[in-house]
Amino acid sequence: MDAERIANEMAAILGSENVLRDPVSLMTYESDGVTLYKAMPHAVVFPSTTDEVSAVARLANNAGVPFTARGAGTGLSGGAIAAEGGVIIALNKMNRILELDIDNRCAVVEPGVVNLWISDAAEPHGYHYAPDPSSQKACTIGGNVAENSGGPHTLKRGVTVNHVTGLEWVMPDGEIVQFGGKSDGCVGYDLRGLAIGSEGTLGIATKIVVKLTPNPQTHKTLLAVFDSMQNASQTVSETIASGMIPASLEMMDRLIIGAVEEAFQFGFPEDAEAALLIELDGLEAGMEAQAEQIAEICRKNKAQSVQVARSEEERQLLWKSRKQAFGALGRIAKDYLTQDGVVPRTRLPETVTEVYRVSEKYGIPIANVFHAGDGNIHPVLLFDQSDPEQVEKVLEASGEIMRACVEVGGVITGEHGIGVEKIEFMRLLFSENDLDLMTSLRDVFNPNGLCNPGKIIPDDEPSQWGMTL
Amino acid sequence: MDAERIANEMAAILGSENVLRDPVSLMTYESDGVTLYKAMPHAVVFPSTTDEVSAVARLANNAGVPFTARGAGTGLSGGAIAAEGGVIIALNKMNRILELDIDNRCAVVEPGVVNLWISDAAEPHGYHYAPDPSSQKACTIGGNVAENSGGPHTLKRGVTVNHVTGLEWVMPDGEIVQFGGKSDGCVGYDLRGLAIGSEGTLGIATKIVVKLTPNPQTHKTLLAVFDSMQNASQTVSETIASGMIPASLEMMDRLIIGAVEEAFQFGFPEDAEAALLIELDGLEAGMEAQAEQIAEICRKNKAQSVQVARSEEERQLLWKSRKQAFGALGRIAKDYLTQDGVVPRTRLPETVTEVYRVSEKYGIPIANVFHAGDGNIHPVLLFDQSDPEQVEKVLEASGEIMRACVEVGGVITGEHGIGVEKIEFMRLLFSENDLDLMTSLRDVFNPNGLCNPGKIIPDDEPSQWGMTL
Repeated sequence: MDAERIANEMAAILGSENVLRDPVSLMTYESDGVTLYKAMPHAVVFPSTTDEVSAVARLANNAGVPFTARGAGTGLSGGAIAAEGGVIIALNKMNRILELDIDNRCAVVEPGVVNLWISDAAEPHGYHYAPDPSSQKACTIGGNVAENSGGPHTLKRGVTVNHVTGLEWVMPDGEIVQFGGKSDGCVGYDLRGLAIGSEGTLGIATKIVVKLTPNPQTHKTLLAVFDSMQNASQTVSETIASGMIPASLEMMDRLIIGAVEEAFQFGFPEDAEAALLIELDGLEAGMEAQAEQIAEICRKNKAQSVQVARSEEERQLLWKSRKQAFGALGRIAKDYLTQDGVVPRTRLPETVTEVYRVSEKYGIPIANVFHAGDGNIHPVLLFDQSDPEQVEKVLEASGEIMRACVEVGGVITGEHGIGVEKIEFMRLLFSENDLDLMTSLRDVFNPNGLCNPGKIIPDDEPSQWGMTL
Repeated sequence: MDAERIANEMAAILGSENVLRDPVSLMTYESDGVTLYKAMPHAVVFPSTTDEVSAVARLANNAGVPFTARGAGTGLSGGAIAAEGGVIIALNKMNRILELDIDNRCAVVEPGVVNLWISDAAEPHGYHYAPDPSSQKACTIGGNVAENSGGPHTLKRGVTVNHVTGLEWVMPDGEIVQFGGKSDGCVGYDLRGLAIGSEGTLGIATKIVVKLTPNPQTHKTLLAVFDSMQNASQTVSETIASGMIPASLEMMDRLIIGAVEEAFQFGFPEDAEAALLIELDGLEAGMEAQAEQIAEICRKNKAQSVQVARSEEERQLLWKSRKQAFGALGRIAKDYLTQDGVVPRTRLPETVTEVYRVSEKYGIPIANVFHAGDGNIHPVLLFDQSDPEQVEKVLEASGEIMRACVEVGGVITGEHGIGVEKIEFMRLLFSENDLDLMTSLRDVFNPNGLCNPGKIIPDDEPSQWGMTL
């Protein structure tokens, strides 16, 4: 591999200060949000413009050197690691909001813009950017596009693909193209839609047109605590069946509640088995009645308590239990791996039961937090990464959970992507023919296979990372 | 071409009663919703099952015979005509709603199911299928998938791609594959998204999983009449800017109003230049206040009158002016061609002015009805199809309008597709490289180019139909 030579050539283009090559600096880029999956890049480069991204992609592609785009590195499937070495194209310097077009309710941003910055910028005008991953204070829009990210508000608002109308895109050979624009319509094949969620394997977004969503007039947030997961699940079903569409409907299980309680003393009852955080948003008028209707459904399903936030401060406090859940888990376990699966909403209770069975079987504590309205589960496996035996168990348990999702008609990722972690599990959902079709599509964009290789589609050699079938 | 031979072979599979070959019967299938674009198929076949669709596609594909799927034939871009002859695969016998899964808020249907049937079937459970093309009493879901159809409620609810989560799909070589399922999540590349809106060129949908949307608790419908298009447009802008998202926001211009008035005597003032039909939906509570706010915006912008429907009967009456618009135009012109373009909402007034200029220039009356909230214009060109000179003018005028849309940052179709009509105009929006990329994608699915040839992507020979650049 000519990685050394092309790193020099890239330094000539970008300035040597924008090319990292010393091993200590490179270590930061060895993994993304999951430190279990590690691969050392040969160099990390920091372009500042589309032309520079195009130039470095072209150089690497022509030289036969793999290259992988990276934003904040908060991804949870190893999608931004240099799985086959080569160059990491870090987009953190391309972090400008180029245009706020309030009249047309959109913004044009660079890929390194942090998700929350857009909402911060649009706030004075009464708008926000809707998809809100838990990592929204850190993760970048470029990464959101790659993974088609969701968040707690996906239930009402949809995921990234529903909120990005246009892309400036650097093809793996360096060609700069446009997919879509400010209009929501699509002409010809939906290349924009295909690019979103392609996990960095079809090229690199260098400009992104995002929709801005009007801020709701008001919110109403409820926290209901239950002594059984079954009752909490029934509450979810009945809420959805009522025809109301909450902005979010988040479920936490006893292990999460316990960890959060230990860390922050919210006052959850000791025998709490499940908590539901339900948020409504929209017009002021009618909101009280709707909240009361949901509280009634909670009580009917034997909620131990139902709290309704009466101020923005109280709302933030209720959300704190959900938002700090991962931090709280960090206090009770050395390491954790957040899994990601989707099941039909009606199959949630049995899937959770199955997760507990798997936890028992492997002796790995598993906390559960999920976007219950979407059937998107996030079992969090708690372990000690320095113990190889535990690592092995965590991956096996993860695999078993994924199988359980597929068995009830679900899928193996809702918003974290396949990355390196689940690449072998693609065979569980797709036939050889299906995978060949995806490979052929990838080849149209990325014929040399150098743009983020080793991701999404399994090849003949078993992956060295993640879960094995 | 072996069309005769394979028609015999298809008759052996489907039964001869399911293969039309006599010229008189075939004439019905010569064109779709636009009788301007005509091509005679060699045969029309009526499969009843996925396996039969697969078998006829395989036969045609192996024999080198073009084949084109067709639903109700209500399309407006010539997408369902046999542009290069061959076999039309009519899906009208595959018209069953296979499953209503209310718990998971979805339905599984065959492609020949008429759009409105789904809402009719879901109605007793309190749900409906959201995309509502004007042709919803006739058009089929298979066609909606092919064209990624919208409708008046697109503004709030989105288009077909936002409401279809899974497809059973017959590839052009006859292979049967699945894209997506009942879950909304996407794993790997979004083949479902790519298939939707591919205008029949990537294969044939044989089962479709559609989302069901809860019926709103209530509607509030307003009709406001203005003496200038400018004031009506300003009303649209201010309504959107207020943060409210109406379910629909339809604009009609003086020619539509005049035709509707002549046909149905709604009592529009004689000097009405524009009418806005605004519908809100959602919870009962707060709806009155919201409707009043919109009425206030209308009055502030000098509306001549603002009517608010006080009953479902009155609501249907207000909608009648919009829904019967095309029928009313049929009374004042022998033929009409409905154009379809999208512009940024802020550029609507100048685009309408341009449409009137084009109308004047060519001496072709053009009525305008549009989904104003989406910036989706539908100029309706009135003419006499038996006069070749008028036909030429209509196509030239259409081309000029499309150019005007592109010049203000818009696109050449919002929901009718490219079909044969606008195939040459793809060059206006896409470079040779872009078109090559689309061709390569098509080749992955449709390497022989026999599945609905002559659509979407222009080739070296200029198209014999539609608008010329």
